[in-house]
Amino acid sequence: MRLALEWAARAAAMHEVPVGAVVYRDDQVLAAAHNRREVDADPVAHAEILAMREAAAKLGTWRLDACGLAVTLEPCPMCAGAMVNARLGELVYGAADPKMGCVDTLYQLCTDPRFNHRVTVRRGVMAEASAELLRAFFRERRGPDKPVKPRP
Amino acid sequence: MRLALEWAARAAAMHEVPVGAVVYRDDQVLAAAHNRREVDADPVAHAEILAMREAAAKLGTWRLDACGLAVTLEPCPMCAGAMVNARLGELVYGAADPKMGCVDTLYQLCTDPRFNHRVTVRRGVMAEASAELLRAFFRERRGPDKPVKPRP
Repeated sequence: MRLALEWAARAAAMHEVPVGAVVYRDDQVLAAAHNRREVDADPVAHAEILAMREAAAKLGTWRLDACGLAVTLEPCPMCAGAMVNARLGELVYGAADPKMGCVDTLYQLCTDPRFNHRVTVRRGVMAEASAELLRAFFRERRGPDKPVKPRP
Repeated sequence: MRLALEWAARAAAMHEVPVGAVVYRDDQVLAAAHNRREVDADPVAHAEILAMREAAAKLGTWRLDACGLAVTLEPCPMCAGAMVNARLGELVYGAADPKMGCVDTLYQLCTDPRFNHRVTVRRGVMAEASAELLRAFFRERRGPDKPVKPRP
């Protein structure tokens, strides 16, 4: 999670929402990424998706059942669904996301018994550091010098 | 949807689960894809994700609010979530998916008022042709000459 936080901080430096993710197997880091939606103009370029794709490419299989993923923010429906599709073994996340969180907050997609896979979930790991990174990012964007554009 | 079905048939020919998707804007096709999870060893390589990524790359933005997507099968949680993230304007799908469908069947992710975007949904378009393509694919895989491996 410490490495995921480092990646999240890199995202903030390039004006991307600071979320970082790491995929690991046993003690080995297979992939690390941060949110790149703006810079890549890619709607699916969340940190979790990029890290899972990189890990799958490295392993040569879409099955990540022997892997865990650490991410600084509770995953959205797309990322939670991708974890089920990838048969991810374990998810560890930091801060809860009241707006889009679909692991615990709005839905429980990673643990729904109707799907063909359930992901083991640990939550709240280094949550305060992760939340503070996000708060600082949005505080700066909303500062008097940089008015944030209203959502369309 | 006719083009999406053609792409789904191509997937079957390469032993991928036959699902096809097309992204369009007005009368113009921007992108078309089929499921490539096995051949790409990529857990997120569903037809919808690939078509949305291609369309976004073509438009130079992750926002697909002026676009529609036609897909032969009801989207899974990952793909439904990606449509919300991409601010997709319209979704048209064929057959319902009782196992993973998250637009109507198991969840209604594309129309949840708590998310920051809702997708307009049309359903059941050419559903029988789409379902028959999937049935034929799995019938062949389960045939006496090709026993299907049990799910791990």
